Amino acid sequence: MAKPFLLGVLGGMGPLATLDFQHKLLDATPAQSDQHHLPSVVWNVPQIADRQKALAGVGPSPLPQLLEGIEKLNQAGASHIAIPCNTAHHWYSQLSAASDAPILHIVDATLDALLTSAKKPERVGIIATKGTLDAGWYQQRLAAQGIESITPTEDELAEWFVPGCYAVKRGKLAEGGELLALQAQALMARGAQQLVLACTEVPVALRAVDAPFLSLTHDPAQSLAERCSRLWQDHRLTQLA
Amino acid sequence: MAKPFLLGVLGGMGPLATLDFQHKLLDATPAQSDQHHLPSVVWNVPQIADRQKALAGVGPSPLPQLLEGIEKLNQAGASHIAIPCNTAHHWYSQLSAASDAPILHIVDATLDALLTSAKKPERVGIIATKGTLDAGWYQQRLAAQGIESITPTEDELAEWFVPGCYAVKRGKLAEGGELLALQAQALMARGAQQLVLACTEVPVALRAVDAPFLSLTHDPAQSLAERCSRLWQDHRLTQLA
Repeated sequence: MAKPFLLGVLGGMGPLATLDFQHKLLDATPAQSDQHHLPSVVWNVPQIADRQKALAGVGPSPLPQLLEGIEKLNQAGASHIAIPCNTAHHWYSQLSAASDAPILHIVDATLDALLTSAKKPERVGIIATKGTLDAGWYQQRLAAQGIESITPTEDELAEWFVPGCYAVKRGKLAEGGELLALQAQALMARGAQQLVLACTEVPVALRAVDAPFLSLTHDPAQSLAERCSRLWQDHRLTQLA
Repeated sequence: MAKPFLLGVLGGMGPLATLDFQHKLLDATPAQSDQHHLPSVVWNVPQIADRQKALAGVGPSPLPQLLEGIEKLNQAGASHIAIPCNTAHHWYSQLSAASDAPILHIVDATLDALLTSAKKPERVGIIATKGTLDAGWYQQRLAAQGIESITPTEDELAEWFVPGCYAVKRGKLAEGGELLALQAQALMARGAQQLVLACTEVPVALRAVDAPFLSLTHDPAQSLAERCSRLWQDHRLTQLA
């Protein structure tokens, strides 16, 4: 017998982004009653080593805590796992190796959504942590499609992106949103026609300041939520058949 | 060694109310970084028998599914459990008996908050499911404090409360809010000076329609979240000491 559908969410990175992802799951799922909504178990434990600092070599690795979350979600019966944090995908292969439940990759979900959208862009800006940028996940997959990536400079990261993200983590959404909007506008000034907001704090903050360019952005957490919801809807249809 | 602090949330009743409770946990906790926020594991599985129908004798009991959630949260290491659904507290004693982790009672948290607020009311209206009203939890504890309870009539429940709640569950917040505001106004017209919104759908919906009497209401999910957050903050202080 196949395992019953249960989405495990490895959250806590940060706790607000984890809630934002759960809202996206609800919104992505057509439902006439509670029972139609996707069943999930959410590990929202923010006592986890800072991913940005770990990748910058100035802090401990979050891998032991990430593995603990993966273990708990598997024990709870997760049939699939989603991680609404781009940077945490740095440890994707180790987490996948330790998980019975398949882990949906946030970059796959985002690029699939971007490439099936109406007009294929020539240049895409990527707002992300240094760890995500250095890993090159988005850049490599965009290049394979003939799309150029525009990424923040070191100075921009230090001036806008990093303080913007930490402001969001302190609950200062407007302050974070203003800094992150400056980062976004700099990428567009250098030719980006669309933006991937590849850090889960960014879309939350840009919505808080009602940034005028939101329609040009792709939110990986949104793409991941939509992929999870489609899996659940397919599962329900199979059960009804 | 004491079990590490981990709040288990038995959610899914409904999934939106479970998110609302998680927001309240975040808002109730002063935090300068992700790591200061309360760690939680959330069982948000809405495939659970309808509580209102079960208590009306026209549907199966949700108890087996509630027990499964309690078991999963204990297995995941929950040190405390919260259930952001008033009606589910009908099964509180069976769930407590099956749980190693103590379950915080939503009615205790709400009444403690109401009785420590500035001005003790003479009459309190209770907006709740028939199951919660018949159980009498709020009425009995209010009576013990010399406070009279004003409760919806059967006709009001059928005309306003029940369709209002199910509208929220379908995602129709404005429609639900308008119906539930009529219910609230009827209790105030009969003398209620304050209102306990003892069904987790109600405050969500009344905020969606920006109901003018919100300052006179008590939200049990809010009281429960504040109690959970205080426990976490006390735990953190103990660790720092």
